[in-house]
Amino acid sequence: MDLLFQKRINKLRGFLGNPDEALLLTNEVNIGYFSGFFHSEGYLLVTQQSAVLMVDFRYHEAAQKKSQCNVMCFSKLYEDLNSLLQKDSVRCLHVEASNLTIARYQRLKKKLQDAGVELCADGKLDRHIEQLRIIKDSTELEKIQKAQKIAENAYLELLNDVHVGITERELATRLQFYMKQGGAEDVSFDLITITGKKTSLPHGVPSNDCVCDGDFITCDFGAVYEGYHSDTTRTVAVGHASEHMQDIYNIVLTAQLAALETIKPNVKCSAVDKAARDIISQAGYGEFFGHSTGHGVGLNIHEQPFVSPKSETVLQAGMVITDEPGIYLPDMFGVRIEDMLCVTETGYKNFVSLSKELIII
Amino acid sequence: MDLLFQKRINKLRGFLGNPDEALLLTNEVNIGYFSGFFHSEGYLLVTQQSAVLMVDFRYHEAAQKKSQCNVMCFSKLYEDLNSLLQKDSVRCLHVEASNLTIARYQRLKKKLQDAGVELCADGKLDRHIEQLRIIKDSTELEKIQKAQKIAENAYLELLNDVHVGITERELATRLQFYMKQGGAEDVSFDLITITGKKTSLPHGVPSNDCVCDGDFITCDFGAVYEGYHSDTTRTVAVGHASEHMQDIYNIVLTAQLAALETIKPNVKCSAVDKAARDIISQAGYGEFFGHSTGHGVGLNIHEQPFVSPKSETVLQAGMVITDEPGIYLPDMFGVRIEDMLCVTETGYKNFVSLSKELIII
Repeated sequence: MDLLFQKRINKLRGFLGNPDEALLLTNEVNIGYFSGFFHSEGYLLVTQQSAVLMVDFRYHEAAQKKSQCNVMCFSKLYEDLNSLLQKDSVRCLHVEASNLTIARYQRLKKKLQDAGVELCADGKLDRHIEQLRIIKDSTELEKIQKAQKIAENAYLELLNDVHVGITERELATRLQFYMKQGGAEDVSFDLITITGKKTSLPHGVPSNDCVCDGDFITCDFGAVYEGYHSDTTRTVAVGHASEHMQDIYNIVLTAQLAALETIKPNVKCSAVDKAARDIISQAGYGEFFGHSTGHGVGLNIHEQPFVSPKSETVLQAGMVITDEPGIYLPDMFGVRIEDMLCVTETGYKNFVSLSKELIII
Repeated sequence: MDLLFQKRINKLRGFLGNPDEALLLTNEVNIGYFSGFFHSEGYLLVTQQSAVLMVDFRYHEAAQKKSQCNVMCFSKLYEDLNSLLQKDSVRCLHVEASNLTIARYQRLKKKLQDAGVELCADGKLDRHIEQLRIIKDSTELEKIQKAQKIAENAYLELLNDVHVGITERELATRLQFYMKQGGAEDVSFDLITITGKKTSLPHGVPSNDCVCDGDFITCDFGAVYEGYHSDTTRTVAVGHASEHMQDIYNIVLTAQLAALETIKPNVKCSAVDKAARDIISQAGYGEFFGHSTGHGVGLNIHEQPFVSPKSETVLQAGMVITDEPGIYLPDMFGVRIEDMLCVTETGYKNFVSLSKELIII
């Protein structure tokens, strides 16, 4: 096993108290993080003695090539799982409460009861894993930056395509194509390339609406590279921007910069949120900024820490977060500006190199 | 409310027994099916008196435009939910056991307990919905066929691009691009365009490996149109195909056609599976066909009915399923051929119009 994965498994195993405890991961992203093999179905069993990735027929050959843990191809999941549990004398099995559905939990519980194994789903394992994944190591930071670079290059290429008459969907299609051509294995989420009044929808979906003169275009985009995500938003104007549009843009930009200013270790996430929110509220637009200022990014597009008004999480070096305030005026327009950055020992490193001045295309 | 959605909600409400029962959907696909508004977060509450889509700030404006149910923008989810439950004197709330995680279930249970509302997550609601969604109405069939048409056109365009030296990833990128250009809102799943030895992986992931002379290429692809998926697989050869490759191809094709022959109402899914499996087993390759013969397709890429060796489900007109046997020879090659079709009163209608003769490019 690669040293990196050995360390991760050891930290994961640190969750186990007694020798008869074990844990079973079902969340595919967590399984990938600890085993090195990402796939949509499977189980990672970690006992005090062993770490076994259980996959079915379809993934067996691929898992053997990629996994850093031992791989077992199961035919009868519950029987094979029971054998492994008995071998290591497991009596208590922890599962991920935020991943396992009630249906799967109840099935698993019933199957293991006969073998004298109790299930535990109190959420503590989930939080343990969140705390391990919240700090990114250098390998992870490299992958996130690579994802960012791919996304930025694609976005810059897309700006050349923007013209009055092109549809939102065409913009999204091309942006995705450029990212994949640039080496992205996927997009981080359904890309948002919306225009005109629709920019007032924080999560608007690109349609066949065309770009018009005097519109804002909001591009919220990210690429996935080796499982790691990037996330950036830029709002640009087409042809010209009214004074009202420029004013709103400048308020959002001021808020975004104010939040950035606060970012360093030992600062609470709520303080970062407050820095942006205060600017927007003081300008009279507080009610039009309905979401959090940011969120963690990594193997998931949204993960810990959440940069929200109530978050007690304290920033530490190695955390990767977004800073993305916005103002959304229904039936008029909206503006969001988003950077993604890594907290460092002394402050932060912004992973986004794109200008934040209002671009008029 | 549109008549179609009124009917769906009424059928859904048919699940409720007593006047004090209600149901809360959390599965985004189910919410979309019954409300007309697809989004990643939200709740659909159906009591005997009302149907309310609960969304947060980010989705409010969009939900109001698209939803066929009343829309409520919640600020405090549990309090707002409780108010709605009290208004309609609900005492028992059914939830989807195959969707709600243990963590969310426990949180909801705790919050509703104080209000005297019991949660029920026995899986019956899930099965009720599956049975409603398993038969597609004419609107749904049109959307699935439209998705199929988009995917086929993209695939035919891709065949022009196939040449020795092109990478698997480039093929996947272009196939996706052609689909989106053709009007797909998304791809049905991570497209599989794999080549050479990797075709022995039923769910192989496209890499930077290049297409070589004498390779098989397996393309498993589908588009999404208005939420509905398509799913098709074709295996083609590049330059030439060895006798062994041709033999295996013909066995898979014979199996695929044998399964098709059986498809009509009142036939068990297991009988369809058996028809394909028997051919492959009799040819001596039973152990190299490790998955089911097919699955249902609709708003999900994999849904009821499952065409597996043990499925007791009986085919009915309006079901949409795939027929996709395969033979996978580790470290050599694999072949899979997949059609997607609709069961009709007298047999089936194949939605795939692509040839199944072995194409050598």
